[in-house]
Amino acid sequence: MRFNSQTSSDGVTEQLFTLGEIPGVLWTPEGARGTRPLILMGHGGGQHKKAPGVLAGARRFVAEGGFAVAAIDAPNHGERPKDPEFLRIAGEMRAGMAADEDPSALVAAMHSHLAGPAVAEWQAVLTAVQQLDQVGTGPVGYWGMSMGCGLGIPFVAAEPRVRAAVLGLLGSTALDDTAARVTVPVQFLVQWDDALVPREQGLALFDALGSAEKTLHANPGNHRDLPSFETDSSLRFFTRHLTRHLG
Amino acid sequence: MRFNSQTSSDGVTEQLFTLGEIPGVLWTPEGARGTRPLILMGHGGGQHKKAPGVLAGARRFVAEGGFAVAAIDAPNHGERPKDPEFLRIAGEMRAGMAADEDPSALVAAMHSHLAGPAVAEWQAVLTAVQQLDQVGTGPVGYWGMSMGCGLGIPFVAAEPRVRAAVLGLLGSTALDDTAARVTVPVQFLVQWDDALVPREQGLALFDALGSAEKTLHANPGNHRDLPSFETDSSLRFFTRHLTRHLG
Repeated sequence: MRFNSQTSSDGVTEQLFTLGEIPGVLWTPEGARGTRPLILMGHGGGQHKKAPGVLAGARRFVAEGGFAVAAIDAPNHGERPKDPEFLRIAGEMRAGMAADEDPSALVAAMHSHLAGPAVAEWQAVLTAVQQLDQVGTGPVGYWGMSMGCGLGIPFVAAEPRVRAAVLGLLGSTALDDTAARVTVPVQFLVQWDDALVPREQGLALFDALGSAEKTLHANPGNHRDLPSFETDSSLRFFTRHLTRHLG
Repeated sequence: MRFNSQTSSDGVTEQLFTLGEIPGVLWTPEGARGTRPLILMGHGGGQHKKAPGVLAGARRFVAEGGFAVAAIDAPNHGERPKDPEFLRIAGEMRAGMAADEDPSALVAAMHSHLAGPAVAEWQAVLTAVQQLDQVGTGPVGYWGMSMGCGLGIPFVAAEPRVRAAVLGLLGSTALDDTAARVTVPVQFLVQWDDALVPREQGLALFDALGSAEKTLHANPGNHRDLPSFETDSSLRFFTRHLTRHLG
């Protein structure tokens, strides 16, 4: 793991790193030392590790919750090279959406193409980040919307170190079997008027989660209209499940 | 308005009152003086003004949020006499549920029978309670589950003094037109495995609400299994919408 830069503002330190070929970013409270809970944040399709939705959540989780937060560019995203199969599926998605077709099958194909390497990369990043003095081996959470949910469900299902997850903005029925293997507490977000994710498919994916404790939050609006109070709610959810002293 | 008793514990003062024929209870922070936001809490069918779900929420809203909270016995409930039509519908509901029939139509008939007087009573109680020095004319919220939602939707739709509401555990489609006239922010609760309220009917009632800002919280479990963290969430929702200084 190699650190390439470090900056601090408003009490939050941001460090850019690479782990092998994976570009990542770590946010911690300025001057932090010792073990703390860690939240891994997965960005959406076509986005990157410092996309606005990730960045806004990460800074609040660190500044208000004292968490460490890590994000990486998913395979074929951000600073990373693109493989031919990714470019083929992405081209079909663009053409299908221009023709107003239901993108669900292509979205599922894309996530399926990326999930194998994405899960392995998150596991490697988790191991590396927890070796840092200011992170350590504390409780781990995962946050991911849309593609961050599509790659997050296989990761959370496979990775016993993750103890709680905020997921959503996805409804692929291809994920149902994997979702049934998720057993940690989940907060799941649905946008009620999501033009990319049919409402019934979002509700069905929530239904498919195997977790005994899962809670659905649905709000009016389209795919990108997630209200900011859901960031407060995610912070409280992670605080409840990843810290000992707060109820 | 006549006060019949006053007790205090854990920083919360409880006063039993009657307003005409309506028995009620008012909770305020011990020693409170001056105007504060008020939450009106409607109990479920067959319950009363100090039912456990009302009492637990009321004491937290007062102790942790500094709110005043008022609850009353709904018509035909608690200490109040029962009219023949109420007894007829209640008898049919018992028989129908013993026979494992869908109770939706009888639930709707019951709420329809009670809504007229219930709305007028809440309006009178609101006016009377706001004349007290320790309440005053601050912002008003309404909280009601199940029958408390069935009587609350017509009340919130009719009463411009109410600025925010937590509703849920109900799905009667007979309420859709009234729900469309609710325009204040609403947090709406659905129990995902509710044997009394079909999931689709609960989601449809949320969908029917006219509010631009509405948020659905769904959790696994049956009608009475509402998780306690939803009380925290209701407190934060009312704090966000009824107090000026908190975000």
